[in-house]
Amino acid sequence: MDVRNKRIAEEQRQEPFDADGVPRALWWDEQAQVLRLLDQTRLPGECVVIACATAAQVGEAIRTLVVRGAPAIGGAAAYGLVLGAREALAADEIIPPETALARLNAIAAELRATRPTAVNLAWALERLLAVAERHTRAGDAVADLPARLLAEAHTLVAEDAAACRVMGQLGNELIADGDTLLTHCNAGALATCGIGTALAPIYTAQRQGKRLHVYVDETRPVLQGARLTAWELQRAGVPLTLISDNMAAHFLRSGDIRAIFVGADRIAANGDTANKIGTYGLAVLARAHGISFYVVAPRSTVDLALPDGDHIPIEERAPTEVTHVRGVALAPEGIHVANPAFDVTPANYISAIITEAGIARAPYTESLAAQMSVRETG
Amino acid sequence: MDVRNKRIAEEQRQEPFDADGVPRALWWDEQAQVLRLLDQTRLPGECVVIACATAAQVGEAIRTLVVRGAPAIGGAAAYGLVLGAREALAADEIIPPETALARLNAIAAELRATRPTAVNLAWALERLLAVAERHTRAGDAVADLPARLLAEAHTLVAEDAAACRVMGQLGNELIADGDTLLTHCNAGALATCGIGTALAPIYTAQRQGKRLHVYVDETRPVLQGARLTAWELQRAGVPLTLISDNMAAHFLRSGDIRAIFVGADRIAANGDTANKIGTYGLAVLARAHGISFYVVAPRSTVDLALPDGDHIPIEERAPTEVTHVRGVALAPEGIHVANPAFDVTPANYISAIITEAGIARAPYTESLAAQMSVRETG
Repeated sequence: MDVRNKRIAEEQRQEPFDADGVPRALWWDEQAQVLRLLDQTRLPGECVVIACATAAQVGEAIRTLVVRGAPAIGGAAAYGLVLGAREALAADEIIPPETALARLNAIAAELRATRPTAVNLAWALERLLAVAERHTRAGDAVADLPARLLAEAHTLVAEDAAACRVMGQLGNELIADGDTLLTHCNAGALATCGIGTALAPIYTAQRQGKRLHVYVDETRPVLQGARLTAWELQRAGVPLTLISDNMAAHFLRSGDIRAIFVGADRIAANGDTANKIGTYGLAVLARAHGISFYVVAPRSTVDLALPDGDHIPIEERAPTEVTHVRGVALAPEGIHVANPAFDVTPANYISAIITEAGIARAPYTESLAAQMSVRETG
Repeated sequence: MDVRNKRIAEEQRQEPFDADGVPRALWWDEQAQVLRLLDQTRLPGECVVIACATAAQVGEAIRTLVVRGAPAIGGAAAYGLVLGAREALAADEIIPPETALARLNAIAAELRATRPTAVNLAWALERLLAVAERHTRAGDAVADLPARLLAEAHTLVAEDAAACRVMGQLGNELIADGDTLLTHCNAGALATCGIGTALAPIYTAQRQGKRLHVYVDETRPVLQGARLTAWELQRAGVPLTLISDNMAAHFLRSGDIRAIFVGADRIAANGDTANKIGTYGLAVLARAHGISFYVVAPRSTVDLALPDGDHIPIEERAPTEVTHVRGVALAPEGIHVANPAFDVTPANYISAIITEAGIARAPYTESLAAQMSVRETG
């Protein structure tokens, strides 16, 4: 294996699907002791699984959208910190606990900086750091920390998968047999550690035999809708119609769309929701057409520390995402381009926020706070 | 010249710009006696001019978007009928006037069928057919018809260029120094026989020294905004920011956009306006944000025969426009795709309709009818 292969980690072609044929965005490879990621930048053309053996590789995978979707990058970052802990704490030297924690904090800071908007990333890292701190304070050996962190990452990922199932059941109650729905970006299995957020109710309804039809926004510039959601839904046998983002208004007016389901990257205490660019416009259009607008996201996406959406940092990504598609130039050179990856939908446009703790309705300051205080969610 | 070259017509690299550097979508090449078209499917990467020597070539160029934009396809179709008349009426046989008119009608029907939504296409053809009929009825020789039609095509194109200038002056009154504007698709020089419709006020304001900034929607699926409008504005020195369509709502909320200017493909008697897909959504968003929404189009775009927008036929184009960009697949194979090329914006969302006869305001049934009855427009 040459240096480049060591750095990027070897690719391994394998079927990254669970027993039901639902794709998996990430999983821990117990045998190879690496994080496996389905490379989402190559979908739907190629189904390639990569291996990350270091924290830096995980950070790069998050930054370059090999893995994306708020809950999925939370899970990936957790394993990234595990891999970082192994590197940083596996030396033959004797490492004082304070030094160990400082090293873990530094690794977490690197991982956290890869994507600024989704709060799940910071949330997952904080959760693992808290475990490290608790065990260190309890006098556990520094050498045991990687194993403790790995166990916590497994728990975190399993909880996210469970949250997806519950959100699917809850959101399913909002879907009737024969419904036509619309979704934006990819808030499916590929965006989570389970069956998705916004797509979870759709999968659940489909499995219950409800007949559905889903309009899928292609979601420029990175085309998560065209590349990922269309692929997921097609595999799951959910009838879909792919549209460009600017067609949504036409079909909201002329078609039979009954509800819009989207995910979230961060939800402020008052319910203001950051999600993929284009979400806010859909919310305004839903209101204008009297159509329900649902946000589906696990509680790890809720950030009670932020009073409202004005405080959510919006990631600005490279202009080339807009000016080029797969290396092909779409626009003249040298022009100014804006590329905010997210927008903020004010809470008053949102019909309900579905988390694994229930269906929250306005006023969200109260309903979200109540959901966040629930311990067990079934 | 081999057969293929004869069919497609030879390409000729030349600068298709007027003295001010504004591009020309089409012009009659007096020397070669062909219609020249700037091939808009290749912009901005390549600036290639093609020659059409037959009506079939013109029809194919319209169908494949080599030339697009309602006023421009009107002009191109006019020359297409001229070329068709030369082919159909140049035989050595003696052609009875009724046969000549029938042949012209058949050629016009072929050209008309290439794009169903823009009314300028039908309008231009009707205008030339009326000339043929008038001259035939007056006893003119059938052999003279092509020259009569060519003269009418020249007049039609010159009038469209004049209408663009007037719309520029009228629309300029709605633009203040320092304004930030937004436009969708390409309603510029490339869409007309002159300096454009929606972009004409922007060019006029720019020439008067007003400082402007224009957000340009990329306009999926064919990317007329990214490929054509960004190119036009960049050449004209108008500061612009290219965005994907789904970013418009974000900037309408968070930015300083004061007005949206769009063109039109057909305007019904009540002011309902068909324009590039995505226009309707922008109009709803403009209303929600208290931003002016202006439609700029020559009177040849107004179809008083249609009472409202529900009667405007909407062209459905090939799914590959959505699933592929320049031959690159963006979506999984075998999925269902919708591709309506236009949508209809109800008149009540439109702040004003600017034609070469003035600035029409609601109620449009009265104001448009008044504009259509004006003879001279200055």
